[in-house]
Amino acid sequence: MAKRPDGSGEDALIARYFRPLAGEAGAFALADDAAIIEPPADADVVVTTDGVICGVHFFPDDPADSVAKKALRMNLSDLAAKGATPLGFVLAIALPRDFDEAWVAAFAKGLGEDIAVYGCPLLGGDTDHTPGLLSVSITAFGIVPKGKMVRRSGAKPGDIIVVTGTIGDSSLGLLLRREPARFDLAAEHREHLLERYLLPQPRTGLADAVRRHASAAMDVSDGLAGDLAKLCRASKVSADVDSAHVPLSPAARAALAGDPRLIETILAGGDDYEILATVAPDNVAALKQASAGISVTEIGRVSDGGASCEARFIDTAGLRIAFARPGYSHF
Amino acid sequence: MAKRPDGSGEDALIARYFRPLAGEAGAFALADDAAIIEPPADADVVVTTDGVICGVHFFPDDPADSVAKKALRMNLSDLAAKGATPLGFVLAIALPRDFDEAWVAAFAKGLGEDIAVYGCPLLGGDTDHTPGLLSVSITAFGIVPKGKMVRRSGAKPGDIIVVTGTIGDSSLGLLLRREPARFDLAAEHREHLLERYLLPQPRTGLADAVRRHASAAMDVSDGLAGDLAKLCRASKVSADVDSAHVPLSPAARAALAGDPRLIETILAGGDDYEILATVAPDNVAALKQASAGISVTEIGRVSDGGASCEARFIDTAGLRIAFARPGYSHF
Repeated sequence: MAKRPDGSGEDALIARYFRPLAGEAGAFALADDAAIIEPPADADVVVTTDGVICGVHFFPDDPADSVAKKALRMNLSDLAAKGATPLGFVLAIALPRDFDEAWVAAFAKGLGEDIAVYGCPLLGGDTDHTPGLLSVSITAFGIVPKGKMVRRSGAKPGDIIVVTGTIGDSSLGLLLRREPARFDLAAEHREHLLERYLLPQPRTGLADAVRRHASAAMDVSDGLAGDLAKLCRASKVSADVDSAHVPLSPAARAALAGDPRLIETILAGGDDYEILATVAPDNVAALKQASAGISVTEIGRVSDGGASCEARFIDTAGLRIAFARPGYSHF
Repeated sequence: MAKRPDGSGEDALIARYFRPLAGEAGAFALADDAAIIEPPADADVVVTTDGVICGVHFFPDDPADSVAKKALRMNLSDLAAKGATPLGFVLAIALPRDFDEAWVAAFAKGLGEDIAVYGCPLLGGDTDHTPGLLSVSITAFGIVPKGKMVRRSGAKPGDIIVVTGTIGDSSLGLLLRREPARFDLAAEHREHLLERYLLPQPRTGLADAVRRHASAAMDVSDGLAGDLAKLCRASKVSADVDSAHVPLSPAARAALAGDPRLIETILAGGDDYEILATVAPDNVAALKQASAGISVTEIGRVSDGGASCEARFIDTAGLRIAFARPGYSHF
């Protein structure tokens, strides 16, 4: 380690790149052992943790600023799906021994941009060297009025199932990164899919509306089919989805037209970072009206769980789709 | 991935080993996107994050239960030094692809034991596979009365500097792991040093007393010399420590007697997880009395910072010790 006049190398790195990102209150300029969260008296603090590992959640040559944004946005997506307003986050980053300071600078720049966009300041962190690969773990905090976090477990038979944005773009983008020759797509469609893989769009603008109008919600991160199945088990209900109603981007439609087998990648591939919610029929119009320009699409209906509590997806021929692997799992 | 009847492999691993560790309130049995913290109305939530990486913070053949305990206790030590009562934690674990389920079982068992001992339940987590090495990142939460977190920045000229327990055991234990032949020590002394490296003893029993009586505090994790220097910079003071007063275990005394150069390893080596605090002279007796059986030793005094704001350590000959490297840094 090269000694530096302003303290250790670790301290210098934190001071140079991360201190400027710290929130005004509670973070103590990242110069204490801990940070403070001061929630309003009538609020619960919602806590979520998610991270990215090089070679698992991003490619080694992905731009550093997008790696930072992806790591933060994965967590912001969870907060939005729970109806929570972002409050701040802590960051644990493990840098490989041969890390490039320019990479850290770009990472911090990207993080700072998203901190400003989403109003979610850095509160604290942990910086380590690793003999392994670069990894980033974020724990993010949000606020909801007391007792009002939107659970996965509140879906009721008769509720309408909705999803935000479009589904499948990111998993198609990942496939495109891995097997570019597999697709015959227009340049703008390729670009759209690759961009969606690189940069999730957390639906933070919908958090309030979800909290006011949804009976249950979760973020779609491990694939719509598998995540809806989780929501069904948590709520002890079943769900029927008409796959033709699942919102697809023009790029995903084009990919699917070229290879109908991609329906499984689209419905079960993951990394969508959209909000999946169930809504009482009377509340659907209000949710859509409050959706702040984010598309909200009805895709199916909740029914009694019966013995199975399952999520059923019907194809255009009216047959149930049998997924080889309904959701992403690391194991 | 082998499909399992109870869901994905990831879900099964969480259900089998981590769900039983979840707190009753707020964790939602780890079956939601997020957890909830419900702090009392008159409390601040103290947040800290720290973790361990295989090959950096522990050896690949360290027992899994001690790896779990070390990761949690590093965070509990931060909370204690801030005067906070543990509230819960979230866990991000990255498992190598060839991980052994028995290792995870032992890890969870160790974690469960400490959750019970320290009253700090698991609130949520993130489980990933990594192509790299096993790593664990924990974000822990504690409670302090509003505005009462003990900062690094409150030390005043004239304050007494105290430290809990003993200093240097863990860094000597690490050296012993790396160079067993370097030491000529009795078996019980070897065992003591190795155990202190493996298992920190967070001073949670002292949290209340620190909050009531200390003007500033931090946990000693990167070496007493470097950490005291950080406290001095945060408080804009200087500090004078008589190194002969720094509390050493019989094992550390024996090691130092055999090799006086080990004074630097002891004072600057790190991983002590003791509490370093500054206390107004009138409060020292009260702090010691409230120390719940944990030894509290006076090691020096705070003075005006002047232009330098530095921590000076004096050796037995009355000369200032010049550290080659006053504290541990990952960079």
